Amino acid sequence: MTNPLNKEIDIITSNNSKLKNVDFDNLTFGRTFTDYMFVCDYIDGEWQQPKIMPYQAMTFEPSARVFHYGQAVFEGMKAYKDENDNVILFRPEDNLKRINISAARLAMPEFPKDIFMNGLSTLLKLDKDWIKSGVGNSLYIRPFIIATEPAISASPANSYRFIIICSPAKAYYTGKVRVLFAQKYSRSADGGVGFAKAAGNYAAQFYPTSLAQAKGYQQIIWTDANTHEFLEEAGTMNIFFRINNTLITAPTSDRILDGITRRSIIQLAKDNNINIEVRRVSVIEIKEAAKNGSLKEIFGAGTAAVISPISAFEHADEVFEIPDTENSYASLFKNQLLNIQHNLSDDRHGWRFEVK
Amino acid sequence: MTNPLNKEIDIITSNNSKLKNVDFDNLTFGRTFTDYMFVCDYIDGEWQQPKIMPYQAMTFEPSARVFHYGQAVFEGMKAYKDENDNVILFRPEDNLKRINISAARLAMPEFPKDIFMNGLSTLLKLDKDWIKSGVGNSLYIRPFIIATEPAISASPANSYRFIIICSPAKAYYTGKVRVLFAQKYSRSADGGVGFAKAAGNYAAQFYPTSLAQAKGYQQIIWTDANTHEFLEEAGTMNIFFRINNTLITAPTSDRILDGITRRSIIQLAKDNNINIEVRRVSVIEIKEAAKNGSLKEIFGAGTAAVISPISAFEHADEVFEIPDTENSYASLFKNQLLNIQHNLSDDRHGWRFEVK
Repeated sequence: MTNPLNKEIDIITSNNSKLKNVDFDNLTFGRTFTDYMFVCDYIDGEWQQPKIMPYQAMTFEPSARVFHYGQAVFEGMKAYKDENDNVILFRPEDNLKRINISAARLAMPEFPKDIFMNGLSTLLKLDKDWIKSGVGNSLYIRPFIIATEPAISASPANSYRFIIICSPAKAYYTGKVRVLFAQKYSRSADGGVGFAKAAGNYAAQFYPTSLAQAKGYQQIIWTDANTHEFLEEAGTMNIFFRINNTLITAPTSDRILDGITRRSIIQLAKDNNINIEVRRVSVIEIKEAAKNGSLKEIFGAGTAAVISPISAFEHADEVFEIPDTENSYASLFKNQLLNIQHNLSDDRHGWRFEVK
Repeated sequence: MTNPLNKEIDIITSNNSKLKNVDFDNLTFGRTFTDYMFVCDYIDGEWQQPKIMPYQAMTFEPSARVFHYGQAVFEGMKAYKDENDNVILFRPEDNLKRINISAARLAMPEFPKDIFMNGLSTLLKLDKDWIKSGVGNSLYIRPFIIATEPAISASPANSYRFIIICSPAKAYYTGKVRVLFAQKYSRSADGGVGFAKAAGNYAAQFYPTSLAQAKGYQQIIWTDANTHEFLEEAGTMNIFFRINNTLITAPTSDRILDGITRRSIIQLAKDNNINIEVRRVSVIEIKEAAKNGSLKEIFGAGTAAVISPISAFEHADEVFEIPDTENSYASLFKNQLLNIQHNLSDDRHGWRFEVK
């Protein structure tokens, strides 16, 4: 049995970079991939020799369990480049912790921290030229684990593949976002997998979101499946509400993802002496606040989007436009996060990780 | 643009059958695949030229959306061989209807009926020798659709692959099954995708099921996520309860799969003048019936397992053994279904479909 912890990563290099063909001013999110990827297989109860190789298509049996039973988890994270061309990650160990929490809920093996951090750093050094400096530029990093065992019995697989692919990114959303508060469809159940970045959680949102988009809303803010009375998250973002000068966000639960951007904003609010309440937020409360003018902001928070200000919401056929607020918390937090991520400000909480 | 409806299926044959290497007396469910598979890609808004080719591994981009967002649906069906070597399917159009219902909920394109029925029949004729006659033998058929577009934005894919693979099968479960009634974990939410054969529904059950298995229970009977008071389904089976001489099963909903075996049993109960009630079934009702002796049977019903008698259940640390019942409904329905499927009895409802 190989012990990958005692082995260097197998690296297959290529002299044929795709970089010269990429127009960094016109990137569509998630369609362009870097020159390399990291791959590590799990066979017979052990993670095998980790490898880095040119990004390429792979062969899978059509009976691979991921195709049939959705046994797949992922993470989203970003690398940044500062003015001195240092490559910086933001709280990367939190992503590893979370992919392992997700994996455990889907009966998948956890991935070892040492191999993850070493593999990710080695990959980013090879793909370093894909990371552009300048605030707003980043390299989106997608670690994921999929069940590869070629057998269609409905049970946990015996073999898995851990992969990291990378895609250069600009800001995920451009402009403000209009959202629909869910009244019929749901994202997750109590006792379900909503807290995990489980693949199946995302496909389940596509159809309801397409209905919302047909009505002019880019996203849905999901409510609790039992009553649809409480606002939870937006599928790819946690949600914050500002009523007067108090910031409110729903507590995490087995239905709500424990977002790293969310957690960072809660800390930044405290750092800025902004009153922050982590508690249930009802639809009625937000509609009343919108009516009486005390609702100052709604914004989403997530790795891909960073901060997405929300300009309007609809619930029960009532549409509420949210007026612009000067000195918004959304722009405050976005600037502070980007400054930390791009090494332009102090890092008092130790969130930066420099790739060396 | 090709119009596959006007085209014959492209068939690539092989002279090298794997059949001679298969021990049909020692089959593990879902691990052995036949010589051929059916493949049809969806590109640019159209299903393309359908193909049949030797079963083989396929290449996919690591960014294929199925790996990240679980955009995948499937079906389970079986082919049988009668005493005259005719190949018989059981209600195959119901499987097509359901995979298209599942696909629509996951924002995937529906698959055309003509291509499905023609492709499936052609595939089964090529794989005919893999179907063994004799009650209990069958060929398990797995149609599935996966999102292949190589882009990791969280939205419906633009390209898909529809595949049918086949695996020779004996009965899925051997012996009686002990089950746990769910109290903490849930399978699906109101407004979710529980009614669909969505890939992600299955991986979400693996971990709770592994906990149940560690306690000696092979399966979980899921309860409603809101209250855990009502019994719903078993993840790979619908569930029937017999109290005295009345058969009870939960109504289908957006949380519960509309099982074809379930629907057939409801019809067979009527044919046999058995009182059948389709209504909510509470945990309390079943525990009381077990205590006072009126609970005569519990059994699961699904394509893979056909009928699985349940011998015991646990709820809230109370274990109930269900005594054997003479002339059980489980064996009555199983025999009647198998006789219809193997062309040994009348087919008054037109459920058989002979492959010609």
